[in-house]
Amino acid sequence: MKHILIIGAGKSASVLIDYLCERAIVQEWHITVADMHLTEALKKTDNRPNTSAISLDIEDEESRKKHIQEQDIVISMLPAHLHMPVAYDCLEYGKHLVTASYVSEEMQALDEAVKAKGLIFLNEIGLDPGIDHMTGMRVLDQLKKEGSEINGFETFAGGLLSPESENNPWKYKFTWNPRNVVLAASGGAVKFLHGGKYKYIPYHKVFRRTERIILDGIGVFEGYANRDSLKYMKCYHLDGIKTLYRGTLRRPGFCRAWDIFVQLGATDDSYIIEGSKEMTHRDFINSFLLYHPTDSVEIKLAHAMRIDFDSDEMLMLEWLGIFENEPIGLQQSSSPARILQHILEKKWTLTPDDKDMIVMYHKFNYTTSNKEEKEIRSTLVVHGKNSRCTAMAQTVGLPVAIATKLILQEKISSIGVQIPVIPEIYEPVLNELEQFGIICTEQQIK
Amino acid sequence: MKHILIIGAGKSASVLIDYLCERAIVQEWHITVADMHLTEALKKTDNRPNTSAISLDIEDEESRKKHIQEQDIVISMLPAHLHMPVAYDCLEYGKHLVTASYVSEEMQALDEAVKAKGLIFLNEIGLDPGIDHMTGMRVLDQLKKEGSEINGFETFAGGLLSPESENNPWKYKFTWNPRNVVLAASGGAVKFLHGGKYKYIPYHKVFRRTERIILDGIGVFEGYANRDSLKYMKCYHLDGIKTLYRGTLRRPGFCRAWDIFVQLGATDDSYIIEGSKEMTHRDFINSFLLYHPTDSVEIKLAHAMRIDFDSDEMLMLEWLGIFENEPIGLQQSSSPARILQHILEKKWTLTPDDKDMIVMYHKFNYTTSNKEEKEIRSTLVVHGKNSRCTAMAQTVGLPVAIATKLILQEKISSIGVQIPVIPEIYEPVLNELEQFGIICTEQQIK
Repeated sequence: MKHILIIGAGKSASVLIDYLCERAIVQEWHITVADMHLTEALKKTDNRPNTSAISLDIEDEESRKKHIQEQDIVISMLPAHLHMPVAYDCLEYGKHLVTASYVSEEMQALDEAVKAKGLIFLNEIGLDPGIDHMTGMRVLDQLKKEGSEINGFETFAGGLLSPESENNPWKYKFTWNPRNVVLAASGGAVKFLHGGKYKYIPYHKVFRRTERIILDGIGVFEGYANRDSLKYMKCYHLDGIKTLYRGTLRRPGFCRAWDIFVQLGATDDSYIIEGSKEMTHRDFINSFLLYHPTDSVEIKLAHAMRIDFDSDEMLMLEWLGIFENEPIGLQQSSSPARILQHILEKKWTLTPDDKDMIVMYHKFNYTTSNKEEKEIRSTLVVHGKNSRCTAMAQTVGLPVAIATKLILQEKISSIGVQIPVIPEIYEPVLNELEQFGIICTEQQIK
Repeated sequence: MKHILIIGAGKSASVLIDYLCERAIVQEWHITVADMHLTEALKKTDNRPNTSAISLDIEDEESRKKHIQEQDIVISMLPAHLHMPVAYDCLEYGKHLVTASYVSEEMQALDEAVKAKGLIFLNEIGLDPGIDHMTGMRVLDQLKKEGSEINGFETFAGGLLSPESENNPWKYKFTWNPRNVVLAASGGAVKFLHGGKYKYIPYHKVFRRTERIILDGIGVFEGYANRDSLKYMKCYHLDGIKTLYRGTLRRPGFCRAWDIFVQLGATDDSYIIEGSKEMTHRDFINSFLLYHPTDSVEIKLAHAMRIDFDSDEMLMLEWLGIFENEPIGLQQSSSPARILQHILEKKWTLTPDDKDMIVMYHKFNYTTSNKEEKEIRSTLVVHGKNSRCTAMAQTVGLPVAIATKLILQEKISSIGVQIPVIPEIYEPVLNELEQFGIICTEQQIK
């Protein structure tokens, strides 16, 4: 019997937990699901055979160590900044670790020690990062094997609404961590390579430097740049590449309207707005606009942003209720980003009937060994089935689950702190994902 | 004989050093001027009686401690981030300390210990901060004494060119720390109070939310907001004030053109531009613009910023040489802000004939005890005399020098970490500054 501990039983863990629980008897696994809230853990295990649900406070060192000691592998679905205590314990007690988060510097620093113990700490094996690495590397490795030179790799992903649920003017709701959506692209200049030139975009210009992307049969999107594309040059082995760009997909119009929040300064997370505990939505917006004893917040915003009252942006803002005299309702005065998130959550929260959608798009430009310029476009679309089996929970959870299985079956020989850019990981994971309908459509362009 | 140590003999210290050296015999002072470069220290002391010039590396703890031990008072004219080792030594050996810099949290934390030793660490006694505090507090204290209620306090200062030296389209050159000019208003949202409302401006909007300021007989200026005006509520004892705003003065047109650098992202100090060691001015600007195989950098910038080729902004940018194929010339790849500073220093450096000018402007709004709404406007203009006795060196150095004299003469009884907002400091300093022609003109408005 192998023991698996899953820490964090949030919404995104449902498909992951189902996958493992359904295979528990055949694979001879015992699965423990741990969460701050026992009810959440219980909802996920559903009393299935070979499962336990426990309440675990990650800060409670004694309890955490006790549970980790009893496992063969630990899956951390905690927010990224909480992985490290788990990682240190896994190292101490010689347990494998799997996460869907970016490798932090602190995590990377454990590489030697993890190797010395013959363990694998596999990270970035969710959707983005995760499926993007795997689907990208499969094509890149194949092209290199054929003797092609890679000139450009552009990749976009978006957690969106399925078309039948696009029932608001933003065609958007939160399908993933709302805080990350509010802070998207912030915290430093965007960096990428285009035509052999390093390019930098300051945060306040990111949402106006978008690219229109038309995907046959799926629809029209716009893409904005992710923060740092350059670091992928190394992890994808693409030294000397001319164009390297990672972006996020939204429906057309989203970025132009979102940019108004950026321009106002309403996505700033670096300071607390005085007295915002007592403010209304309207007061919040007004705090970024010129003082005037009588002019309305609407006219001041429209003027400052140079938009018409009947523009799409204005209608989108009004739909969100940001001009309302409604109390924000936070328990304490907060940063602009926290307040904005709270206001958005009132409107952008999925209802039980809403369905989400994941879209991923890669573009590879290369020169073949006989000097032909070619392009491959690859798209992946996943639709949510219901509010438990969302597209996000499938695409984040299934790769984590499959990789966990492969490690327990000793089918992965790599050790140390890893991400899934090596064939022995991405090949079996992608092959199994196909059985779940998670499959890229590739198109060769002359 | 009292011993004074001045650490840092840069340009801004010349008037300070002259003031003290000229009084050394009468006052029975011995003055030691210490600098990294002995020649700089020697140039400043000029072998006058009762003076020594020494070379001092502030990182050399033994040498620093040895020299500080021998003094009665230490003046640190070092960059602000280098004050602390000096402050710790002054505390250890029981020496007074004077600086023209903002009180850091680390400095403030010494308050109790400094008081316990009966010492004064007097900071923010230069121009801005310094003369602004003193001239402001004199009026504010007087108004309060008369029973008036203060409704608003707006204050602006600028280190500018004297009109006869305004021989470039920016009407600007560096007359003070260039790095601070490049990073002005960055590093967090601007915060102030207007009409009883807290207002916040994100960095990327600061240079387009300017105020036009017309000063009789001095000329027309524009003011942009300094980063945090709110903290002055406490230090000026202005709780409950409706409007509190601190700003910087430039000549009209400066902010609109400077904003282009902000919009490009060229003032960012948070990352290194890859390969910028080898870049030209033109490459640098191009790194912030869209990739295009043939479009010129000029058209891409003009389009991105929505400006005409014959606009003032475009002419100002061209005058700076930012479109030239001239190597930047830095020894190592650097941040955008460092590169921009380096490019600007090629054009914005004072020649020996250039004269600078300081302009300071306060506006006080108040309600008198018999309920009249009134306003006082106060302006200060100081012109540079020559390249040694600049307006900046006078207005920074003289308050420091006078305060040092007052401390040595035991005319200041305050102890602890102080700033000059108390009458026993600001009254005698301002009175003596008047003898040097540094005097505010006050105007009562109905």
